[in-house]
Amino acid sequence: MTVNVLATYEIATALPLEKAAAVIAGEQSSGTFVAVARETGELKARHAATVRSIEELPLSGRPPLPGAVGDWSAARRSRIVVEFPVVNFGPSVPNLLAAVAGNLFELRELGELRLVDLDVPDVFGSVYAGPAFGVDGTKRLVGKSGDRGPLIGTIVKPSIGLGPEELAELVEELALAGIDFIKDDELQGNPPGFPLAERVSVVMDVLKRTADRTGVMPMYAFNITDDISNLARNHDLVRAAGGSCVMIVINSVGFAGVQYLRERSELPIHGHRAMFGAFARSPQLGIAFRVFQKLARLVGVDHLHTNGIANKFYETDDEVVASITDVRAPLLGGYHVVPVLSSGQTPAIADVTYARVGDPGDLLVLAGGGIHAHPGGSGAGVTAMRDAWDAAVTGEALADRAERSPALAASLAQFGARP
Amino acid sequence: MTVNVLATYEIATALPLEKAAAVIAGEQSSGTFVAVARETGELKARHAATVRSIEELPLSGRPPLPGAVGDWSAARRSRIVVEFPVVNFGPSVPNLLAAVAGNLFELRELGELRLVDLDVPDVFGSVYAGPAFGVDGTKRLVGKSGDRGPLIGTIVKPSIGLGPEELAELVEELALAGIDFIKDDELQGNPPGFPLAERVSVVMDVLKRTADRTGVMPMYAFNITDDISNLARNHDLVRAAGGSCVMIVINSVGFAGVQYLRERSELPIHGHRAMFGAFARSPQLGIAFRVFQKLARLVGVDHLHTNGIANKFYETDDEVVASITDVRAPLLGGYHVVPVLSSGQTPAIADVTYARVGDPGDLLVLAGGGIHAHPGGSGAGVTAMRDAWDAAVTGEALADRAERSPALAASLAQFGARP
Repeated sequence: MTVNVLATYEIATALPLEKAAAVIAGEQSSGTFVAVARETGELKARHAATVRSIEELPLSGRPPLPGAVGDWSAARRSRIVVEFPVVNFGPSVPNLLAAVAGNLFELRELGELRLVDLDVPDVFGSVYAGPAFGVDGTKRLVGKSGDRGPLIGTIVKPSIGLGPEELAELVEELALAGIDFIKDDELQGNPPGFPLAERVSVVMDVLKRTADRTGVMPMYAFNITDDISNLARNHDLVRAAGGSCVMIVINSVGFAGVQYLRERSELPIHGHRAMFGAFARSPQLGIAFRVFQKLARLVGVDHLHTNGIANKFYETDDEVVASITDVRAPLLGGYHVVPVLSSGQTPAIADVTYARVGDPGDLLVLAGGGIHAHPGGSGAGVTAMRDAWDAAVTGEALADRAERSPALAASLAQFGARP
Repeated sequence: MTVNVLATYEIATALPLEKAAAVIAGEQSSGTFVAVARETGELKARHAATVRSIEELPLSGRPPLPGAVGDWSAARRSRIVVEFPVVNFGPSVPNLLAAVAGNLFELRELGELRLVDLDVPDVFGSVYAGPAFGVDGTKRLVGKSGDRGPLIGTIVKPSIGLGPEELAELVEELALAGIDFIKDDELQGNPPGFPLAERVSVVMDVLKRTADRTGVMPMYAFNITDDISNLARNHDLVRAAGGSCVMIVINSVGFAGVQYLRERSELPIHGHRAMFGAFARSPQLGIAFRVFQKLARLVGVDHLHTNGIANKFYETDDEVVASITDVRAPLLGGYHVVPVLSSGQTPAIADVTYARVGDPGDLLVLAGGGIHAHPGGSGAGVTAMRDAWDAAVTGEALADRAERSPALAASLAQFGARP
């Protein structure tokens, strides 16, 4: 661990690699496009970012990003590590971002530029406390400390538009079926027709009523995403009603908004990654999940969406496995958060997911359509998910378990076995 | 103007265009990957996003983004307009973002997806007051109401690392040379060695001292970018010291962070666009400047960076002109902010810039190296910028003016005439 910040980029350039790397280091620290007065050797020694390593990579084969200068037939690609003096910005995520992910994406010296890793020194831990609940705190609140399986959760579907009676009916069905976790959709914020305050009231009434019968209450993540000034009020609504989780769309409020909420939250923060693709899907540009997840954990989410195996989005299973591995890796020695698997999740893929990601004791697996579209209703969908994961973890074939589990059998018939 | 939100996307897909467009509308409103219970016709009628138009475009010729499904040799590209019911999110920028720019960038049905325009209904104006100062308020504070030319400004260079004495010396030189505006670099936040509070104190002391001699005080934009909880305190530091502007790195604090500051600010907010390239430079993915600038104005910046003609970054002059035109276009009938031209700006391009962007009465033109690297020092650099713009606006050739302006002559010799 360095005392400074190490940023790793994948770049492609038609310039000599050393020169392109130096442009990044200069633009993002003490330099500008011409030498200026007062840019002394002493100042550079203290403040200049420096290129620590350059490792050549195979070319991507893609045409360069617009504006790239030079003869692209001579382009080379490499992974470079740049060290930024922490004295330039201090332990401040917003100011760190301006340095390691600021203007450099616009440099014409580069035809590809991706920030693929970021190591911050321990001093960031003095400002950013990270997850207040994390894996252990979440499982404790759900009453599943020490449980082997993943937490099983779902997203309210349809995403938006349910009225109070329909939502109450759905939540009751899920709670009675023994689900661990329910979340609002990322599209469900604080809509005028059915505002958050009313949703909290309706949902918590149902959850308390069903808990009186079942003895357990699922965690419900209320999407409190909103203007910053409303976040504390929204959180307090949930807290006052006895709720146990708040959800935030990280990119809608920024890492700074998450940190603001973290300072005021008494509940686990469920971090949704909507909009991630806008700066991550191009293999030539932007910011990789490895960086995104570190920053999200630093600013204090307790749960973080990683996408899921066999998802409906663009990422391959290998990429999803890498994301989950990244979230599980210690950050500054800790910052353990719950990887949240979602998107196209169904009981039919419990076994392949288990085979790819291993011990699911820290996971939250969310199935939206995979539960709600069950021919027997959402309650049967929960049973099917639970049975599928229990089979996977205990090494039983899903098809074998389905012989004893009509709910799982119906789900497998619906979604098919995954090859 | 619709009562709903209209989002315009440029997409490429190997699926039938109508089908791909419908997937976007469904994923981002009431649908999921399978039909679910309670997704009634009535619910869809009220909440479903709908495709309003599809206009075919020529193919980009680029390979599709990763994960795109289908036979790409059959791909088609189009501009589509999707209407989102405002009842789904209300007048809330963070929740609007989750809908129009959320998961859709990850859809495998698409091999290209860019959000290129966004029209919001008047109801957003009831929550987002926009710029408190804008063009008129800024020019009034600078003492240049009614002035024909652009405001001439500069960025402190070197970006970081100047100590108190050096910064004071530089600011004094610039103030005595009659500059209108000085700003911190986006890399200069609140560093431990020379924190914002001390910077504010040093700079304002100098500005007051020089104002006693000159009778005018330039506007200084202090970069107060920081964790949200510190923004109000940072602003108050500037305000209490008699400062007249605060600067924020928009993407470091998010639109929500800017709105938070706007609610508490008594000073113009100078909006820097660092990190814009991360989600905008790919022609296949992300969010275009037209959308970015509308949101930035809505949440309340008074000045907005647009890049400049002949800039050192990737954008063409045509793109920069389009950005400035976008910022000048009324938003909800107003929201007029100062377009800020920067990046590689020098006196030598005043004439071509004027030719491309017209009446500069609303502009702020920033030259960093273009002023500081002047062989006669920063003060001479300011004189050269001022003379160059005065010549451009009055229709005099720069070379002719240089015969009467030694400072401009030296600058033209340094940076050369632009073709």
